Amino acid sequence: MLVVMKNDATEAQVKAVIKEIEGMGYRGVPMPGAQRTAICIVGNTGPVDDSGLMILEGVKETVRVTKQYKLVSRETHPQPTTITIGDINIGAGKPVLMAGPCAVESEEQALTIARRVKKSGAEIFRGGAFKPRTSPYSFQGLGEEGLKILAKVRDETGLLIVTEAIDESSLALVDRYADIIQIGARNMHNYSLLRQAGHASKPVLLKRSFAATIEEWLMAAEYISSEGNSRVILCERGIRTFSDNTRNTLDLSAIPSVKQVSHLPVIVDPSHAAGKRDYVIPLSKGAIAVGADGLLVEVHHDPTHALSDGMQSLYPEQFDELVKEIKGLAP
Amino acid sequence: MLVVMKNDATEAQVKAVIKEIEGMGYRGVPMPGAQRTAICIVGNTGPVDDSGLMILEGVKETVRVTKQYKLVSRETHPQPTTITIGDINIGAGKPVLMAGPCAVESEEQALTIARRVKKSGAEIFRGGAFKPRTSPYSFQGLGEEGLKILAKVRDETGLLIVTEAIDESSLALVDRYADIIQIGARNMHNYSLLRQAGHASKPVLLKRSFAATIEEWLMAAEYISSEGNSRVILCERGIRTFSDNTRNTLDLSAIPSVKQVSHLPVIVDPSHAAGKRDYVIPLSKGAIAVGADGLLVEVHHDPTHALSDGMQSLYPEQFDELVKEIKGLAP
Amino acid sequence: MLVVMKNDATEAQVKAVIKEIEGMGYRGVPMPGAQRTAICIVGNTGPVDDSGLMILEGVKETVRVTKQYKLVSRETHPQPTTITIGDINIGAGKPVLMAGPCAVESEEQALTIARRVKKSGAEIFRGGAFKPRTSPYSFQGLGEEGLKILAKVRDETGLLIVTEAIDESSLALVDRYADIIQIGARNMHNYSLLRQAGHASKPVLLKRSFAATIEEWLMAAEYISSEGNSRVILCERGIRTFSDNTRNTLDLSAIPSVKQVSHLPVIVDPSHAAGKRDYVIPLSKGAIAVGADGLLVEVHHDPTHALSDGMQSLYPEQFDELVKEIKGLAP
Amino acid sequence: MLVVMKNDATEAQVKAVIKEIEGMGYRGVPMPGAQRTAICIVGNTGPVDDSGLMILEGVKETVRVTKQYKLVSRETHPQPTTITIGDINIGAGKPVLMAGPCAVESEEQALTIARRVKKSGAEIFRGGAFKPRTSPYSFQGLGEEGLKILAKVRDETGLLIVTEAIDESSLALVDRYADIIQIGARNMHNYSLLRQAGHASKPVLLKRSFAATIEEWLMAAEYISSEGNSRVILCERGIRTFSDNTRNTLDLSAIPSVKQVSHLPVIVDPSHAAGKRDYVIPLSKGAIAVGADGLLVEVHHDPTHALSDGMQSLYPEQFDELVKEIKGLAP
Repeated sequence: MLVVMKNDATEAQVKAVIKEIEGMGYRGVPMPGAQRTAICIVGNTGPVDDSGLMILEGVKETVRVTKQYKLVSRETHPQPTTITIGDINIGAGKPVLMAGPCAVESEEQALTIARRVKKSGAEIFRGGAFKPRTSPYSFQGLGEEGLKILAKVRDETGLLIVTEAIDESSLALVDRYADIIQIGARNMHNYSLLRQAGHASKPVLLKRSFAATIEEWLMAAEYISSEGNSRVILCERGIRTFSDNTRNTLDLSAIPSVKQVSHLPVIVDPSHAAGKRDYVIPLSKGAIAVGADGLLVEVHHDPTHALSDGMQSLYPEQFDELVKEIKGLAP
Repeated sequence: MLVVMKNDATEAQVKAVIKEIEGMGYRGVPMPGAQRTAICIVGNTGPVDDSGLMILEGVKETVRVTKQYKLVSRETHPQPTTITIGDINIGAGKPVLMAGPCAVESEEQALTIARRVKKSGAEIFRGGAFKPRTSPYSFQGLGEEGLKILAKVRDETGLLIVTEAIDESSLALVDRYADIIQIGARNMHNYSLLRQAGHASKPVLLKRSFAATIEEWLMAAEYISSEGNSRVILCERGIRTFSDNTRNTLDLSAIPSVKQVSHLPVIVDPSHAAGKRDYVIPLSKGAIAVGADGLLVEVHHDPTHALSDGMQSLYPEQFDELVKEIKGLAP
Repeated sequence: MLVVMKNDATEAQVKAVIKEIEGMGYRGVPMPGAQRTAICIVGNTGPVDDSGLMILEGVKETVRVTKQYKLVSRETHPQPTTITIGDINIGAGKPVLMAGPCAVESEEQALTIARRVKKSGAEIFRGGAFKPRTSPYSFQGLGEEGLKILAKVRDETGLLIVTEAIDESSLALVDRYADIIQIGARNMHNYSLLRQAGHASKPVLLKRSFAATIEEWLMAAEYISSEGNSRVILCERGIRTFSDNTRNTLDLSAIPSVKQVSHLPVIVDPSHAAGKRDYVIPLSKGAIAVGADGLLVEVHHDPTHALSDGMQSLYPEQFDELVKEIKGLAP
Repeated sequence: MLVVMKNDATEAQVKAVIKEIEGMGYRGVPMPGAQRTAICIVGNTGPVDDSGLMILEGVKETVRVTKQYKLVSRETHPQPTTITIGDINIGAGKPVLMAGPCAVESEEQALTIARRVKKSGAEIFRGGAFKPRTSPYSFQGLGEEGLKILAKVRDETGLLIVTEAIDESSLALVDRYADIIQIGARNMHNYSLLRQAGHASKPVLLKRSFAATIEEWLMAAEYISSEGNSRVILCERGIRTFSDNTRNTLDLSAIPSVKQVSHLPVIVDPSHAAGKRDYVIPLSKGAIAVGADGLLVEVHHDPTHALSDGMQSLYPEQFDELVKEIKGLAP
């Protein structure tokens, strides 16, 4: 349930409502808006009796929320959210470009690629230091060493850093070194990790599991938001289907679907969906045309020798072409 | 196997090769190109002994084809195919717009919608006279009466007509009345119907089954081509997955996938994939941006009263917006 | 809608009800039961006004049917149906065994396998004369020649014959030569063929499409029943999923699901689902244990040389083992 | 590649081999066995030249491993594994029965159900103390309080306890209180948790993710085994498909598929796959008939008031029937 306060409600009135909610055994999360504050009631398993709330000073109305997610919903937050990190605004109209290798392999490799993608127009550098790998015998990433390289990349290039956290200890480290914490598709159902990300100081890039419905994905975002971190960027990266022409089937309908029900920005990773580099440029164009707020693309200066988990990275020249091609496609 | 003739091979030499192929128990299908003719050997189940062919006059080389489709493949026909019907060129760069109701309901309904979508910019009118319905108790279409209405629509508006054939008798009728014969997703595996369409006089719009791989789809096109009708337009309309935000999951990666291996034009039906009208415009933009050669869209002047099989038709104003939005997205 | 007649209603009263239904613009299909007759109203697209029917003599009550299928539903026919062909009862408790090669290759091949599977305990011989093949260049079956061989197999061994029809002309032939007409998975959505099968003189074995829900499958059976042929045997043969350990994922939950809502018998084809022969025996045991009314199994005297569409046939000794293993598993 | 050391190889020899492997650019992971040590070469992307290794002291042979899993494979361990806990042998022929509620709700509830399922024939009690829930606002389990109740259940009934761990801290607790640590479907890709489970003192019940191939599932088991805990029990619980008659599609072909390539025991959870209690008994029979080593079934003394995540628990009388029905189905 949502308690909507009047436009001129005072902070004291908001606090009184929260106290009353806590007295009922629930938790009240205030969500300040441009004009007025709403208070989201969290922790109830059934209908809430709002009679004690309606009579409080400053309360305009109560709204019953039917979906299982609330904080990430447009019902509670009608305007799209822009996430600002440094000079970059994600969700503000201009698509943001995140590019880089699958894995951080060395300082030289990371810097080489970072300088190159920056020149092409990328604003955020991606690269894995902790890699969730299907086989325990595959390369698992450089760990904190990789994070230090990423921090150096930021210092030298000015690019922001997004990199994946895969468990409690890596999340704490990524929160310290990076600018955006990525939760990968395989961890979208890892609710403990989501909760922990809800206490992190950095925005979270939450990939859709390859087996998740839109509702389950938004519920995962709700896990993060309900712990206090409302800066969540969603990322579609393909779902698992019978179709075998691509690694996964990129579900571009997810973009308008998410935007209809949620205020969160949503970007697209065409590299993990396609698998093959030949499809990355057309799918990037499709993603921007359907309304994605940005792209997350694998680029490597030497793709044939990249440590890559079955995906083909773009050549830098292809990334140049991609940047050129998507110009003018966004609204 | 493909027998590639020399640039200066005579018609008599081509005929001699075909005769030799027939003597081997196969069939030879000549495929004239801009510079030279290739002859496709059809009907072999295993490798073909090409020793008797290589010694014939005018033969340049023989090429073993590894895929199970040949005629629709870029291996045998490297340049993209343009299908010309009247003034309209499908596959020539400019996206073609096919629009109209799910079903022809009456002459008035069809004409009302046709005039409206023509005004918006549509070039081809769609509308079902024979409807494949999941339930035997659902409306099955007006039949030949519907085809006559469609012919009248063409006479009055100048729009070309595309409509579905569902069996032998309806295919013969559609071939007579319409400009493009649609084979629906449910009949993509109906090989007898595909063969019959291979003998039709009109181009065929072949929808991808919601459960077909790209290879199976191209093989279905090969059924049509191998009977002599090489004018096949492919149409992606969504595949069946676990995801429930749309009626089917539109697989836009199918466009670059098809274009990489086949020379046939490929269009997109966002209406059947989305189910919900709110997603039709963004998905149309995505389709054009990834490189589709056109769109097949459901539009109705009174969508809430449309006889529609679970899809939501666009309002005419939305179709106007769609036409405006996709301008400038094509290459 | 269902008009349920009183136990002592006369034939003349039944006829009067049907006449009244026809006067309303619908069709009335009488369904005689052990104790009383029900009349199914077919052809309505919306609710039926039953006021004129309720006052007729012999009418006990009217029942609104909510599902889109009626005739194949337990709502209209609560007791399971047994389909009797010669001495064989399908759906009567004892599982029926249908076995034989993928395709009829020659008289000698068919007779060799038929004698062998009969010795093992099979009661019905399977073998394709008309083969729906993904590629137009694959072996398409011996056609009527194959049907004549199958008829000979019946004459010499006493086994009943089940074989596939793929279009109008082959269905007419199969109806003449065989004992059971098979409609394959790829034609489950071919509604014209289903209707034609509804006028055939032989029972129909209706395979589930690899992309069909249970409801769509029952609706396909309804197409056949609504044309007058109520002798339909359903056959589960695997659905298309992301899982790649088998050719298709055998959905054994389909058996209790069908039996809960329909009175039709349902058998299982483990060969097409598994693809690999090693899984055929365990899946056959599973099928009988969940309650299937029989099995359809590919067996060949020389599997490594079988003309088979990607499935591995069992060796005859494996079929002996299968027959032994499933003994005692049925209720 | 695996470098197998001689039985009497010294630690220095093992170290020399690892050093040589590192010199080749890979990593060497020693895997000490009962009799001898093998060294697994990790990090190679193509074939390894073993000539420099074969000549080292103490090396018996090198084995090329084709699959990405090794320890759980029949290639390295040809005989099926039996996991013994107290008096119970899992994988030894007789199916083991695990039953109980979805969640531990109270001591009284747990004890009531435990006594009842024990009477029916269950040997292991299931019940969740930590519940991974799609929504952050759903009941998340009693936590350690629930584990204490489960320990009491064991003390009072003699039933062994299996319960789920969802993160590092709960895994440590479950390892302390329970007899088998369950890793749920949603955490099958949580490689950090799998590694931690590899250091636990108790056997692990590893559920298949609803989106995992057999190979990915075995790779998850390999994560656990490669850390030292080889006592892994696999559990099939249904995969996500388009089919909507059940909550998930139970893939019983997974049982013979796993048994063909792995030595680990594999059981089936029909409750989570079916969703509806009517299908649990037939699917249980199917599971045992295909060769499953046991069942994990939800049973509740008052199913209509159970705290259950969308599944229907069996009534105790139905569980009695289930136990009776599966008798005689196992080999």
